[in-house]
Amino acid sequence: MESSIHQWFCQIRDAAARISDRVMRTPVRHQLALDDALGAQVWLKCENLQHTGAFKFRGACNALLQLTPAQREAGVFTVSSGNHGAALAAAGQQLGISVRVGVASNASPVKRANMEQYDAELITIEPGMTAREQFVEQQQASGRHFVPPYNHPHIICGQGTAALELLEQQPDLEILLTPLGGGGLLSGTAIVGRELGISNIYGVEPELAADGRASLEAGSIQPAMPPRSVCDGLLTSLGEETFAIIRRAVDDVLVVTDEQALAAQQLCFEHTGMWIEPSSATPLAAIKAYPQLFAAKRIGVVISGGNVNQLANS
Amino acid sequence: MESSIHQWFCQIRDAAARISDRVMRTPVRHQLALDDALGAQVWLKCENLQHTGAFKFRGACNALLQLTPAQREAGVFTVSSGNHGAALAAAGQQLGISVRVGVASNASPVKRANMEQYDAELITIEPGMTAREQFVEQQQASGRHFVPPYNHPHIICGQGTAALELLEQQPDLEILLTPLGGGGLLSGTAIVGRELGISNIYGVEPELAADGRASLEAGSIQPAMPPRSVCDGLLTSLGEETFAIIRRAVDDVLVVTDEQALAAQQLCFEHTGMWIEPSSATPLAAIKAYPQLFAAKRIGVVISGGNVNQLANS
Repeated sequence: MESSIHQWFCQIRDAAARISDRVMRTPVRHQLALDDALGAQVWLKCENLQHTGAFKFRGACNALLQLTPAQREAGVFTVSSGNHGAALAAAGQQLGISVRVGVASNASPVKRANMEQYDAELITIEPGMTAREQFVEQQQASGRHFVPPYNHPHIICGQGTAALELLEQQPDLEILLTPLGGGGLLSGTAIVGRELGISNIYGVEPELAADGRASLEAGSIQPAMPPRSVCDGLLTSLGEETFAIIRRAVDDVLVVTDEQALAAQQLCFEHTGMWIEPSSATPLAAIKAYPQLFAAKRIGVVISGGNVNQLANS
Repeated sequence: MESSIHQWFCQIRDAAARISDRVMRTPVRHQLALDDALGAQVWLKCENLQHTGAFKFRGACNALLQLTPAQREAGVFTVSSGNHGAALAAAGQQLGISVRVGVASNASPVKRANMEQYDAELITIEPGMTAREQFVEQQQASGRHFVPPYNHPHIICGQGTAALELLEQQPDLEILLTPLGGGGLLSGTAIVGRELGISNIYGVEPELAADGRASLEAGSIQPAMPPRSVCDGLLTSLGEETFAIIRRAVDDVLVVTDEQALAAQQLCFEHTGMWIEPSSATPLAAIKAYPQLFAAKRIGVVISGGNVNQLANS
């Protein structure tokens, strides 16, 4: 089992080399005033500043760069209500690959607009897993290649490159924290953290979408909960690939309330001037909510995205 | 005359090498929605994400790294109501050099707090040039080395490294824009822009602190105006060193109103999620206010800082 973490890690290193010309080496920020407010030493890997405003661009690039010429020619599709769709659209635009995205009718207007600006073809579908699966079947029949949002090794390895960079930029961390939605970011981060000797790795999710924690407890993937959390990037269930990694490489999945996430979003803004997604603020909320785990520790947090309506919440 | 720009440029290249281990290579952001709002193609060199939240850290590092051992030992001082003081304090803390800062009693609390967190010794002085000059005289008599906020080649060259990086990260720009206060950032940027063939270079200042424009028109340095603009980073007069460079290397100094600067600050926030200083928003305001100069052009803007109270203005 353990050698397999190393194999995954080597694939993440390969992914980093593959996408290095296309992704932004995002800054790592450390603000003493934020440390004071959180009671820990916190380094923010600012993927909210990544192209398309989220870490998702890493996985999308890594996936598209491994297509065959025939797959490139036929184009790709995905289902996304947000950052993965925009990331795939932008990566496709750069590489000259046609991108079609199935977008749930209840997707955030900000995230929908973010996809549109990169010339993706958007097809509105009903919310929920049934319509989603139907869309995937139809599109696959049409000959386009499916680039899933998280449950694929190419995506997981692309997302893991954020943590790899973070640990190059700030090597002496004890703990890594990321939000947990479908698990692409957390599983990639966990592989890197385990290989490079990080003591503890946690995922964080809102209690209104705590299917990750439930899955860990049950030992099998539990379905996503109804989409009631403000953390709109974290509403999906885990996938087989991501769950397998998370089970063996992540210490625990922590849960915060939506109120805690929104307060952490505000706190981050006060001390960094960056307005991040509520989803992305969940790890900061957890640092405050679980001092027994985090007080005075040196913690790396992947800030997953910044695609949110700045006016509605400020 | 022209060879002298080249000599300055070589010093900026040397500065970049000297400080490269200490400064953050800040990201350059390009947002299609911001382009649409401004009617031009705009790349933001995000020095608001620089250590201490402003480009000033570059000049401070470049100056401190060129002190003699005796000067290091004796410590340094400056006068600053803001970003230069914090930058010098942080650079001094890193290098083990004692830093004393004369801070005007009307300085922004956010900027004062930013200085305090890096262990600078703060001495409150009266606002205005008289108290400032008195403080400098006293401190120089005490044997400490003066690191001025802008009017020194080491500072100018340090600040110029931001534009050097910007043009490495995004080479195909036609125009460079920076705010204009004392002129350290603008003069350093202008040297880099002229040497590397940028078509036009402009400084921007608020009309309530338009002494830079008045100085260009008069052909001699005009005193700072009373401190009434919200652009608190741009209230100082030019220095002999910066004025000499600006006269020969800058196309023009443009003026915007405080209202235009505040609207541009808001616009930047809406499209980037970053809350920048009103001072830093003046170039964005100018792009909107002067379409005859900027429409559809490829423009690089140095976003000078992000040290502002996020709550007061949002």
